[in-house]
Amino acid sequence: MTKPAGNTNIAVFDSTLRDGAQAEGISFSVEDKIKITRALDELGVAYIEAGNPGSNPKDLEFFQRVKGINLKHAALTAFGSTRRPGVTPAEDDNIKNLVLAETPAVAIFGKSWDFHVTDIINTTLEENLAMIQDTMAYFKSLGKEVVYDAEHFFDGYKNNPEYAMATLQAAKTGGADWIVLCETNGGAFPQEVFDATALVVKEVGGKIGIHCHNDGGMAVANTIMAVEAGARQVQGTYVGFGERCGNVNLCTVIGNLQLKKRMQCLPDGKLQELTPTARYIAEVANISLNEREPFIGNSAFAHKGGMHIDGVHKNVRSFEHVDPEKIGNKRRFLMSEVAGRSTILNKIRKVNPNIRKDSEETRLVMQRLKELEHEGYQFEGAESSFELVIRKTLGKYKPFFTLDHFKIIDEQMPDGTHSSTAILKINVDGKEEVTAAEGNGPVNALDKALRKALEAFYPELKEVYLADYKVRVLDTRSATASRVRVLIESSDGRYVWSTVGVSGDIIEASWLALVDSMEYKLLKIIEEKASAYM
Amino acid sequence: MTKPAGNTNIAVFDSTLRDGAQAEGISFSVEDKIKITRALDELGVAYIEAGNPGSNPKDLEFFQRVKGINLKHAALTAFGSTRRPGVTPAEDDNIKNLVLAETPAVAIFGKSWDFHVTDIINTTLEENLAMIQDTMAYFKSLGKEVVYDAEHFFDGYKNNPEYAMATLQAAKTGGADWIVLCETNGGAFPQEVFDATALVVKEVGGKIGIHCHNDGGMAVANTIMAVEAGARQVQGTYVGFGERCGNVNLCTVIGNLQLKKRMQCLPDGKLQELTPTARYIAEVANISLNEREPFIGNSAFAHKGGMHIDGVHKNVRSFEHVDPEKIGNKRRFLMSEVAGRSTILNKIRKVNPNIRKDSEETRLVMQRLKELEHEGYQFEGAESSFELVIRKTLGKYKPFFTLDHFKIIDEQMPDGTHSSTAILKINVDGKEEVTAAEGNGPVNALDKALRKALEAFYPELKEVYLADYKVRVLDTRSATASRVRVLIESSDGRYVWSTVGVSGDIIEASWLALVDSMEYKLLKIIEEKASAYM
Repeated sequence: MTKPAGNTNIAVFDSTLRDGAQAEGISFSVEDKIKITRALDELGVAYIEAGNPGSNPKDLEFFQRVKGINLKHAALTAFGSTRRPGVTPAEDDNIKNLVLAETPAVAIFGKSWDFHVTDIINTTLEENLAMIQDTMAYFKSLGKEVVYDAEHFFDGYKNNPEYAMATLQAAKTGGADWIVLCETNGGAFPQEVFDATALVVKEVGGKIGIHCHNDGGMAVANTIMAVEAGARQVQGTYVGFGERCGNVNLCTVIGNLQLKKRMQCLPDGKLQELTPTARYIAEVANISLNEREPFIGNSAFAHKGGMHIDGVHKNVRSFEHVDPEKIGNKRRFLMSEVAGRSTILNKIRKVNPNIRKDSEETRLVMQRLKELEHEGYQFEGAESSFELVIRKTLGKYKPFFTLDHFKIIDEQMPDGTHSSTAILKINVDGKEEVTAAEGNGPVNALDKALRKALEAFYPELKEVYLADYKVRVLDTRSATASRVRVLIESSDGRYVWSTVGVSGDIIEASWLALVDSMEYKLLKIIEEKASAYM
Repeated sequence: MTKPAGNTNIAVFDSTLRDGAQAEGISFSVEDKIKITRALDELGVAYIEAGNPGSNPKDLEFFQRVKGINLKHAALTAFGSTRRPGVTPAEDDNIKNLVLAETPAVAIFGKSWDFHVTDIINTTLEENLAMIQDTMAYFKSLGKEVVYDAEHFFDGYKNNPEYAMATLQAAKTGGADWIVLCETNGGAFPQEVFDATALVVKEVGGKIGIHCHNDGGMAVANTIMAVEAGARQVQGTYVGFGERCGNVNLCTVIGNLQLKKRMQCLPDGKLQELTPTARYIAEVANISLNEREPFIGNSAFAHKGGMHIDGVHKNVRSFEHVDPEKIGNKRRFLMSEVAGRSTILNKIRKVNPNIRKDSEETRLVMQRLKELEHEGYQFEGAESSFELVIRKTLGKYKPFFTLDHFKIIDEQMPDGTHSSTAILKINVDGKEEVTAAEGNGPVNALDKALRKALEAFYPELKEVYLADYKVRVLDTRSATASRVRVLIESSDGRYVWSTVGVSGDIIEASWLALVDSMEYKLLKIIEEKASAYM
């Protein structure tokens, strides 16, 4: 028998690898699933629902491979349905596969909405009750912890309350350890969820859980309301992947319950892993996180409006509901025309600590920022380019190289082959360097040629690589003659920095961002060396 | 005085252009703001909060330009704060700018949280009450409809209920038409919002509104709970842009209230514009919509799990909380071959009406579609390219020209000037044509050269122009070597058609989309001529 992890009083049941795998655009390899299992166990969730061995051979392979892994916190859980009508559990093929998964816990879903019984699986209401009870009893006889998922419980309760309650009683009689109320279609309202859950806690009793979907945009509120009504297991997925609009996002639920309701969901000291774990799982799933995601999003504590930034500088409580560090996220102040002086001042002070809010330099930088934003620049995602703008405006900048010229030739040959070549000539302290490179596209060719040229003078640049490249068309009205903004993210393995370039020509825009990236890195190398002697 | 649009009983207050502009990554041009204003008015929202003329000169320019536009439904609203301490409203510069905006309505925010009064704006609690009352009275004396935004009302109410209520009374005494309770930091819970709102409705009375942020992931539920407690104005942003985690997403609120609570938010017949409007605004804002967004997301009604698809085929109620057509969205079956076929069959029949669902041709097109999607193609926004794919697969396609080769030279000269030149050679019925063109960037040069060459043979192409050009980087991991998808929208003044190209090279991808665009137009010319003789 498995207990909730550590001394938590809410059992977190993660279904990223099962319900999450039913999200559009998500397809986990067995390798991915093992990585995510380790990450979730490290975080300290109580249950990891890792797949449906009955319906999916890939999942069965996963369960075979995962047996070797020793989990610290989580009970590995296999998912499946109650027995088919008219057979015993032992005869049912899906159930046989569930047994083969050899997990300490199983999650079995059954029908609680009479309409689904009669119109979707086409059996009698009586047989459905027997299917639930028999299947629970069978898995208990095998010594497993059994979680009963009451599919569509809330729709069923609206349609036929007596029958919906009867399905829960059947699960209880069968010996289910947990009875989980599923808001499968995601359309319920918080008060409905609270009232129905409170009634189940009172009339059925035992350990109750909640499983919500987000079709109405209220999955988090519905889950919290169920917990307030007495539910003690919360099912969801990490970052909210799932069918249609997704399952409830466990990051948000955990953040709310543990920081505000003082109900422990993760073992001591694990809460600050919430954000890094979300980013890791998104990486493995190869999807980009929604920047505005509560608690863990990149923008969740990003302040842009001038009055907001001013307020947060005076007291963080003024515009933050929780301390970002508690969940491993961080506060950011965004550069923009709505940002106001104080933010910009902090950036200026990194270059020259003596400058004040009312200094002439501050005014000049503000003015330059407005001009550049008018041209289509945006420094929110390009802090490093903005530091260079400040240095240029304050005369604290000396270029590391100058471009003489570059030339790009992009050809489609008669035989259909395509090639991109870049030739360039730069000048470093009077020394010239001419290089050429072929690339997968013109920007890639230019990037390679510039590195080649600079590495002759600055070998440290060898470790720099481009981590991300984004293109935005700014004014689509003029179509292919429109201006583009190119954002580049570079890394040297230790740090990541972002730069931006804007032009009517995508190649020139890319060039500007590439140059900023190299210059910024060289600047940091010098600063590091300098500070080493201080 | 402005009434809520049509016969709605909930006044929708859209702040996409003001609070939404405070979202990371959003930077609206004046042109963008005018487009979005027209779209929101067309949809039928009651109020469009379009900017903060006091803090942002760009917004003031917008208000000057928008005066010429005649809005059908919405009251244009300018946003600003109560007067500064120790001055009269008439002396306050921000308020002067608000007056210059000449809008029928203004939204004025004031402090309802005592901590903000004493620690952030550093004035006395008494002066703050006077600031609220005076500012309301001043704008009423100018004959405007006045919305009072009680900033941080819910935090203020927790901290000092008497004072929070006193700020609302001050606004009422000053003559505010609406008193809007703001959940500014986004951390409140639904029950708290319900209780406090119900109390305000009872004790303050008048027209009450609600303004929620999503930091706790409960903005939608909090908004709905406030409406259940008696609020009749809902403030939010379209698709939920806003500071940090964003404002409440009006699409979700409207969907829930109008479809489930039977409270009208939009004029009759406008609800099905919810999804197209969201996609249009996202386009203008140049951000990609979250696919899992409730109601309007591309995945909101996408069914993937086998049991789900099976259920929906039997009865859509089984796994859908509302009918997607009611909000202009559509149902999709992600894994189901069968379901996929019927949609694609309709497109195939436009080319060959005799083809059936089980024809070999259908299988071939499905297979080709899968291959192309695997390469990164996406035909949702490029129906014309998809028609060409079908024609090519069915052998109903004959190219209007063949490319021999093209060459693009993009140069940055020693004097800093930049140029892009394209040279190409095409072949039409054995006749060769060589052209060259200079452009604003390589793609623009290529576009011009191709037109020049084709117009020699097909003068009708003279009327074709590119209406839109979009670039999406598909796999940002490999940075400048990543694959890009180029979407082109062309027009001949009467019709608009969209084509797509994918390649590792942005120029090749653009070329593929350009070729499809020309071929499609020439195809339609022939079809028109043909039909003229039938």
